Amino acid sequence: MTREMIHETVITTLNPDSTAHIAPFGVRERDGHIIVAPFRPSASLDNMLRARCAVINFTDDVRIFAGALTGRCDWPVFPATRITGHVLAAALAHCELELIAIRDDDTRPELTFRVAHEVTHRPFRGFNRAQAAVLEAAVLVSRLHMLPPEKIAAETEYLKIAVEKTAGEREWQAWTWLMERIENHNAELRGDNLA
Amino acid sequence: MTREMIHETVITTLNPDSTAHIAPFGVRERDGHIIVAPFRPSASLDNMLRARCAVINFTDDVRIFAGALTGRCDWPVFPATRITGHVLAAALAHCELELIAIRDDDTRPELTFRVAHEVTHRPFRGFNRAQAAVLEAAVLVSRLHMLPPEKIAAETEYLKIAVEKTAGEREWQAWTWLMERIENHNAELRGDNLA
Repeated sequence: MTREMIHETVITTLNPDSTAHIAPFGVRERDGHIIVAPFRPSASLDNMLRARCAVINFTDDVRIFAGALTGRCDWPVFPATRITGHVLAAALAHCELELIAIRDDDTRPELTFRVAHEVTHRPFRGFNRAQAAVLEAAVLVSRLHMLPPEKIAAETEYLKIAVEKTAGEREWQAWTWLMERIENHNAELRGDNLA
Repeated sequence: MTREMIHETVITTLNPDSTAHIAPFGVRERDGHIIVAPFRPSASLDNMLRARCAVINFTDDVRIFAGALTGRCDWPVFPATRITGHVLAAALAHCELELIAIRDDDTRPELTFRVAHEVTHRPFRGFNRAQAAVLEAAVLVSRLHMLPPEKIAAETEYLKIAVEKTAGEREWQAWTWLMERIENHNAELRGDNLA
């Protein structure tokens, strides 16, 4: 059985005004190409279809993932080399991509990209359990409206152990943003915001 | 408050017969130096104190972590450049280390290493939730004798979700090794191995 591994990355696309749109995406690799399948509607999808290119950023800065779910989407970028686009300053490595195929779908079209250029900026520094916990908490936050509060509370309690043990500053900041988001959601459920 | 982030890495040390001893270690960075604190007794510690050097390997091959807990410790290596030692072929990056200070302790001495040489071999490819789940399962397996079977079962059920969704071949293999180890442990608890 062929396994299609999914990596959690950050994709930068070109807005109509040429600024960067920054969004986390799980991506697959197939026959040396990069496969991205955005759910409609999606600003990233619109940008990819219009500009026919994108940058995939491999970053270990979990603030960018947590930020995407908590209204913090403005991160330093620099210009791409071979395509018109933006590279995240926080990328350990990046690939510049050209769109070569689209399998259309009403819910989730699948886009295939060719790697036009690839750069390694900084070395991988090993796994960090807090980074992984922040990523799992981000997945939870993205599904807040579908999950019972008890499940969210139990899972964040579990994830918090690795954060307390292994986090650096960036991981603590990202974790705090996500926990604030969950607390706000719970306050809404309790009706705390009613006048 | 200064946070000392912990990265999960693989350290190769020099056995008395000059072969490689390969073992996972959580490491800290402090003032540009690498801090390692092995629990006694430890073959890695003995090797570090004798040879006064080590290689820290930053790898995303979770089989090496799962293998260390399931009797699979023989992985391809190549010679280090600046020190006498071995580098994991699976390393995305590595640092060659020289021992510069020891804070002795009966339980867990703390060793400080200077980075003598550093090489990036391959780019980081982004986070993978299955890799993180395998690492968490490895932590569980390392504490099997301290944890109730129900807790182990509940946590592996939770971790399995990310494995099923995002794993590649290496992650599935590592996961299978760890689950076999847990199953053997449970069989022992049940007395299945009694004649």
